Amino acid sequence: MDGIGKTRWVIAEGYIPGASTGSGRAFESHETACILNAGSREAKVRITVYFSDRDPVGPYQVKVPAKRTKHVRFNDLKDPAPVPRDTDYSSVIESDVPIVVQHSRLDSRQDALALLSTIAFSGD
Amino acid sequence: MDGIGKTRWVIAEGYIPGASTGSGRAFESHETACILNAGSREAKVRITVYFSDRDPVGPYQVKVPAKRTKHVRFNDLKDPAPVPRDTDYSSVIESDVPIVVQHSRLDSRQDALALLSTIAFSGD
Amino acid sequence: MDGIGKTRWVIAEGYIPGASTGSGRAFESHETACILNAGSREAKVRITVYFSDRDPVGPYQVKVPAKRTKHVRFNDLKDPAPVPRDTDYSSVIESDVPIVVQHSRLDSRQDALALLSTIAFSGD
Amino acid sequence: MDGIGKTRWVIAEGYIPGASTGSGRAFESHETACILNAGSREAKVRITVYFSDRDPVGPYQVKVPAKRTKHVRFNDLKDPAPVPRDTDYSSVIESDVPIVVQHSRLDSRQDALALLSTIAFSGD
Repeated sequence: MDGIGKTRWVIAEGYIPGASTGSGRAFESHETACILNAGSREAKVRITVYFSDRDPVGPYQVKVPAKRTKHVRFNDLKDPAPVPRDTDYSSVIESDVPIVVQHSRLDSRQDALALLSTIAFSGD
Repeated sequence: MDGIGKTRWVIAEGYIPGASTGSGRAFESHETACILNAGSREAKVRITVYFSDRDPVGPYQVKVPAKRTKHVRFNDLKDPAPVPRDTDYSSVIESDVPIVVQHSRLDSRQDALALLSTIAFSGD
Repeated sequence: MDGIGKTRWVIAEGYIPGASTGSGRAFESHETACILNAGSREAKVRITVYFSDRDPVGPYQVKVPAKRTKHVRFNDLKDPAPVPRDTDYSSVIESDVPIVVQHSRLDSRQDALALLSTIAFSGD
Repeated sequence: MDGIGKTRWVIAEGYIPGASTGSGRAFESHETACILNAGSREAKVRITVYFSDRDPVGPYQVKVPAKRTKHVRFNDLKDPAPVPRDTDYSSVIESDVPIVVQHSRLDSRQDALALLSTIAFSGD
């Protein structure tokens, strides 16, 4: 199963809604990069966040163990800086071994939640 | 129509909501891998499920007849083990003949259902 | 702008909800193949629909003029047979000139509508 | 980070809902092309909009600075003409340097908003 995926991915759409309804972490509005490392070596992942009106921030560093998935919430990224809410951004996700990245958002600003998801763009 | 698709696919985002509203199977929260086998030979499909904190489980074995589609609900997978609810996972889907895989979820935890879908990533 | 797109596309996920809320065609639950023909020659498009338990039906024939888009609702396909509601299906979309195909669904079975969309899979 | 992405993209599905609920720009029904220019040179982007029953309109011209993202709302495009509401369209997005494009829509016609998103198709 080694070699599945790519080492560079882009999520051009990024936006963490600043408000939520419902209770608990499950229903908190969030934006996620779902990462699969199906290979046999730990993936060292670096996320860079791009904005419309300021310099990029990052890299945020995330490790995904061999044969594991990690659903990274942008809400949880803290170092070097939290990702601002209600702000347009994009992200570039780079890894030292092949991974697969899918983007999703849960938006619970209104009473009924809304979802979106797409496979990310894989640059070569 | 032979040869349409790929033999290895990845759905990096996986999550079966543990609750549902509405009545009947149609409105039960579920996660689906929609598989098309447009070719003239039966597809023997093997699904492996990856988690964040334990070893992968599988393969789940599914057959898709020639010139048929099968919308596989992860909720229904039982052997070797049910897929846990409210748990992050990813899946790798392999076939002995080319297939096409699309991912979708219906989330009815709240009164109004939410949907997401994306073409899966096709590894070579 | 000639040559943009591919001549064979697959939408593996297909399902027309049999019920709707809201009024008018805009809010009727529907499934759509959005087709762009950016080229300078009319596209002759053939859609084949695959099921889980019976032989494929088609081809449905659709023409998309040069430099035009057509958002084809599966609900509207009649010849050779209507597409059944509340039924899993997949579709293969073939064209004599390059086109681009995106899949979307509006589901208004419950009071609040739900949407999904994804670029289709382009076979070579 | 130069060279990430492609120079020609297609969003085959386009539709700006003519009505909205909720208050403020955030909840206005809108359709967006999220563009990332991760490179070190400004991107000169040209958007052409295709319709079902009339000639294409454009190009709309947008600049995305180096190392910036721009989430372009089709609602905001004015020159050479506003994009009509409640109308099917498609768009082709061309750039003089590589970019990545993701499509999303927020539909707030009903009380609970709905979302969709997909990576656009990248023509070569």
